[in-house]
Amino acid sequence: MALGIGVIGVGVMGRRHADNIGGLAPRARLLAVTDSDAEAARSTADYLGADWYANADDLLARSDIQAVVIATGSDTHAELVVKAADRGKDILCEKPLALTVPDAERAAAAAEANGVRLQVGFMRRYDPAYKEAFEAIAQGEIGHPVLFAGISRDAQPPPRSYFTGAGAGGLFIDSGNHDFDLARWLMQDEVSSVSASGGIVASPELADVQPIDVGLATLTFRNGAMGTVALYRRAVYGYDIRTEVLGTEGAVMIGGHTKHAVRFLRPGRSTSEVQMHWLDRFAEAYRLEVADWVQRMATDRPPTITATDGVRAVQLSVAAEESRATGRPINLPTY
Amino acid sequence: MALGIGVIGVGVMGRRHADNIGGLAPRARLLAVTDSDAEAARSTADYLGADWYANADDLLARSDIQAVVIATGSDTHAELVVKAADRGKDILCEKPLALTVPDAERAAAAAEANGVRLQVGFMRRYDPAYKEAFEAIAQGEIGHPVLFAGISRDAQPPPRSYFTGAGAGGLFIDSGNHDFDLARWLMQDEVSSVSASGGIVASPELADVQPIDVGLATLTFRNGAMGTVALYRRAVYGYDIRTEVLGTEGAVMIGGHTKHAVRFLRPGRSTSEVQMHWLDRFAEAYRLEVADWVQRMATDRPPTITATDGVRAVQLSVAAEESRATGRPINLPTY
Amino acid sequence: MALGIGVIGVGVMGRRHADNIGGLAPRARLLAVTDSDAEAARSTADYLGADWYANADDLLARSDIQAVVIATGSDTHAELVVKAADRGKDILCEKPLALTVPDAERAAAAAEANGVRLQVGFMRRYDPAYKEAFEAIAQGEIGHPVLFAGISRDAQPPPRSYFTGAGAGGLFIDSGNHDFDLARWLMQDEVSSVSASGGIVASPELADVQPIDVGLATLTFRNGAMGTVALYRRAVYGYDIRTEVLGTEGAVMIGGHTKHAVRFLRPGRSTSEVQMHWLDRFAEAYRLEVADWVQRMATDRPPTITATDGVRAVQLSVAAEESRATGRPINLPTY
Amino acid sequence: MALGIGVIGVGVMGRRHADNIGGLAPRARLLAVTDSDAEAARSTADYLGADWYANADDLLARSDIQAVVIATGSDTHAELVVKAADRGKDILCEKPLALTVPDAERAAAAAEANGVRLQVGFMRRYDPAYKEAFEAIAQGEIGHPVLFAGISRDAQPPPRSYFTGAGAGGLFIDSGNHDFDLARWLMQDEVSSVSASGGIVASPELADVQPIDVGLATLTFRNGAMGTVALYRRAVYGYDIRTEVLGTEGAVMIGGHTKHAVRFLRPGRSTSEVQMHWLDRFAEAYRLEVADWVQRMATDRPPTITATDGVRAVQLSVAAEESRATGRPINLPTY
Repeated sequence: MALGIGVIGVGVMGRRHADNIGGLAPRARLLAVTDSDAEAARSTADYLGADWYANADDLLARSDIQAVVIATGSDTHAELVVKAADRGKDILCEKPLALTVPDAERAAAAAEANGVRLQVGFMRRYDPAYKEAFEAIAQGEIGHPVLFAGISRDAQPPPRSYFTGAGAGGLFIDSGNHDFDLARWLMQDEVSSVSASGGIVASPELADVQPIDVGLATLTFRNGAMGTVALYRRAVYGYDIRTEVLGTEGAVMIGGHTKHAVRFLRPGRSTSEVQMHWLDRFAEAYRLEVADWVQRMATDRPPTITATDGVRAVQLSVAAEESRATGRPINLPTY
Repeated sequence: MALGIGVIGVGVMGRRHADNIGGLAPRARLLAVTDSDAEAARSTADYLGADWYANADDLLARSDIQAVVIATGSDTHAELVVKAADRGKDILCEKPLALTVPDAERAAAAAEANGVRLQVGFMRRYDPAYKEAFEAIAQGEIGHPVLFAGISRDAQPPPRSYFTGAGAGGLFIDSGNHDFDLARWLMQDEVSSVSASGGIVASPELADVQPIDVGLATLTFRNGAMGTVALYRRAVYGYDIRTEVLGTEGAVMIGGHTKHAVRFLRPGRSTSEVQMHWLDRFAEAYRLEVADWVQRMATDRPPTITATDGVRAVQLSVAAEESRATGRPINLPTY
Repeated sequence: MALGIGVIGVGVMGRRHADNIGGLAPRARLLAVTDSDAEAARSTADYLGADWYANADDLLARSDIQAVVIATGSDTHAELVVKAADRGKDILCEKPLALTVPDAERAAAAAEANGVRLQVGFMRRYDPAYKEAFEAIAQGEIGHPVLFAGISRDAQPPPRSYFTGAGAGGLFIDSGNHDFDLARWLMQDEVSSVSASGGIVASPELADVQPIDVGLATLTFRNGAMGTVALYRRAVYGYDIRTEVLGTEGAVMIGGHTKHAVRFLRPGRSTSEVQMHWLDRFAEAYRLEVADWVQRMATDRPPTITATDGVRAVQLSVAAEESRATGRPINLPTY
Repeated sequence: MALGIGVIGVGVMGRRHADNIGGLAPRARLLAVTDSDAEAARSTADYLGADWYANADDLLARSDIQAVVIATGSDTHAELVVKAADRGKDILCEKPLALTVPDAERAAAAAEANGVRLQVGFMRRYDPAYKEAFEAIAQGEIGHPVLFAGISRDAQPPPRSYFTGAGAGGLFIDSGNHDFDLARWLMQDEVSSVSASGGIVASPELADVQPIDVGLATLTFRNGAMGTVALYRRAVYGYDIRTEVLGTEGAVMIGGHTKHAVRFLRPGRSTSEVQMHWLDRFAEAYRLEVADWVQRMATDRPPTITATDGVRAVQLSVAAEESRATGRPINLPTY
């Protein structure tokens, strides 16, 4: 029997999830989509052969939908998770789980209370390069991990309207949420304190709506390991995601600038195309993420990335922003 | 209306095509599969929610199947193309189109006579790196192409049984068929003569069933450009496909050894995982190939890679083998 | 006429300088060496065909020595610069210029007062890769530089005896001095504030003699640009020096892990040798540094890297350490 | 006692050797240079503090010169080796040893008859990357070597005057001599037959003075291994020397396009500087070559690369050219 799936929010991210679910037939079936932009919902539904609704409640009311993907604006994630959980749906929620710690905790609690499974969309964990790194670390190939370095750079900031909308969470949560999750996952430890700073270095025209375009965080882990997360909204040259984990016996480095295995050589310079978009860089990760999640939901197994992972990442993002704003290191609670 | 598709031959390659067709719903539908191994046909059909047949004729008899993928042993391609063409099906045939020039020509003629469209599975043309290289060359970014160098190395030869079976075509056709197609495509010219040699350098245990595990061909193009194709069945370290095109104003190089963007660094050595399998290296190419073909078939457009491309590549493969066997350069006909 | 040169301190670094001076004949001549280890002085002198002295004063007393290289322990740099300046010698002093800001300023003042030229040994500025990056930045190829990221990792910490000796300056000055100089040079701006942290993550056995084996500093430049410097004493896998400068129109990245252009490929992994030692990584830089300095001294031109550069780098190193120790950001004076 | 050295021929190559000998003081001393261009001899001698002569005989007559470097036009190598050998000088002769096999044999015989040591300037063997590859192969790290692939590409052909002069040897000897030596050295075997072809693909303006700008050779080794050598005079984008040796258990690849460890990233493309000149690519090899040779001459040891190596490489170059010209494979004598 195919798993009936609904997708809530069909912007660029939700549309990608919906497409990928199409590729999982006959084990999964995209039954319906919804979006605050009804026209987007309708055209996506038509293209993919699904139903559409103008609001999420109608989609959630369908009993043949067992699982939903939430890919709306970040400010609505928590509320939609609660609603979906109340309707008994299993959930794949895009990151961040919420924009505040209380909201994230509320979402996690609702899933727990209703006995539904909630996975948070940290798709980098599914990227074959990250996965290989994780497995090598877990098998002790670099000894004990002691130093983490995460770089996340967007080519260009989102449009001005993004920052004035309710969905913007600030650099440490919009972009940093991924790195904080990677830090916990790859270092196999929880963070005990965060110290962060930031500033506007290249986006003066956005300074009135975003406090920083560079965000720099230093992490201390419970076991004494340390780490850095460096975020930047305007790398210009490309979308640049790199992570290093140094251990007592070696190191692993993930990521690079080259998009394809193709180089052009001309007098004086060799050139290669740089990755420009996250949907290109992580196309395979998104495919594998939704395939794994569908497989687990269909076979009654727990999700790979839990609600707690989502809460922890929000805690770290919020702590980084608080540290930046106050100029003080922030200690994390000892959960 | 979904394009109804049948897949003939569900070995590793046909199964991949069938999977990828699944991802094209609702624009395409895999209706049936067939294989000389009925159990393989049945289990694939069950998994993908399609019908199955023990022989291709039954599949070809279905009128709701408008297009077929042929992914059987190379020795059966030509005959199946003829049958499918006679039934009016559009065809995506795995390379090589045939093992001999007359068979390839017969297949191409059958498609033409029946007014069906025949595409040959040179999926490397769909690989994003090759595609970017092709487009750059076509736009004159390296000037006029004057030197081609193609390397194709398998990690290990196929099992002994492959060489004793009817489907084995010899190194210049099994593996070289791709490189000869790339040579024509990227150099934008036809080959006028081929000179080739080869030998057994690392597979003495197979020497009684395969004449060469290394094949080296030199190409002269009609416009005076030159090229080399170097094939090897036992690279051990990985599946290594690299191509260089040098032009009068620059060069382009496609391919590399690294599988993922992940490196392990340990005292004295840094390591990265090497690509081992063609299905990994060209996974995206296979996806894009079948998506493009379905799109073209569904919208009544000609195929991207034509029957003539298939015939030419067979001519070159056969000429290379003849040159090797006779020790003489072989001139190609002036088609 | 050959420039007469003396080398004070013939440990690994001074010995390398002395060797390189040998290669500059007949434009320069190594006349004498000295070292607190008289046997080292003697054997080096014998090998290189120079005189030797058991103390620096005797070397400085020779009137045929017009210029000296100071390559002793860091704690003695300032005093020797003062002595050499008093004797009227031009000076190439290894970094750091001193271990404290007052000492660094005293050394710079002595050179100025005596009208001698003092260059500080920031040899990375001579490395062809760094030099190419600098020139590209200076020519505006990346727009206006807005973000700096420096990584300096040693493969292993020095022996315990180093830390208990007087010459140890702490991670921010021993290693960080280079990165702070690169930051000023490549960003073409002065640093206005430094915030730093650090800890022991992988060297517990040295914890009683060194406060940190990881040092992380965040820099704010006067024009609003930002930067990070990440230092580590125990990378295990190699000597890893990388620098990134991001500008408003592009970025430049210097450094990498591969020692030679050679790769080994074996089943499942490709490997390459990692740079393990700074004398290997910067061999050419040291050659070019001493050649440039000799050329400038011999032709009465100012040094490339000035006493002020040496003072500024000490100020930054000391500020970073103070920030780490106090947990507060440190503002730099507005020189 | 310093080894007294003379350099015969101070074009770009001889001048480099003379410079490098300067760096070996006090163990070696450049005593004199000579060149058919007396002005070049004089200015080099002045710069380096040596004597100069208008002809080689006068230099060879000096009894304080124990060893000579021959870096004149290729057509004069053999004769100068004979003269120097007759005078009892040890010799480092630039490649090729001669332009014909009889000349090469005559040169080798003269050295033997006079009991002097003759090294041929295959400096690639001193390149750290090649050396590391060789040692790994010798230690069995790739199993038994079975396939060789050598690529040598110049950025641009020499000026027209080069081809009309007596020193031009044709592509297979000018450039191929290095690759044929690498093939013997890295494969640890002698070549039994050569088959070659070539043509003019990008230098029509030179077609009347050079028969080929592309040269492609296939090698068969005595033990059954195979190899290719691909030479090109007009790569445009850079000086590109790459070598691959495949063994039964792995492979090693030497060379690459990047000049420095520096990359520029801009929207859509990342760029790096390509090696353009052999003196840059092999600067360190030339230094190490002359240092090793001086050390061996000064300590009465045999040279690293022998007269026989020089003869063999000439035999292979000449055989390749003969194969190209006749269209037949050429078997090498069983020396």
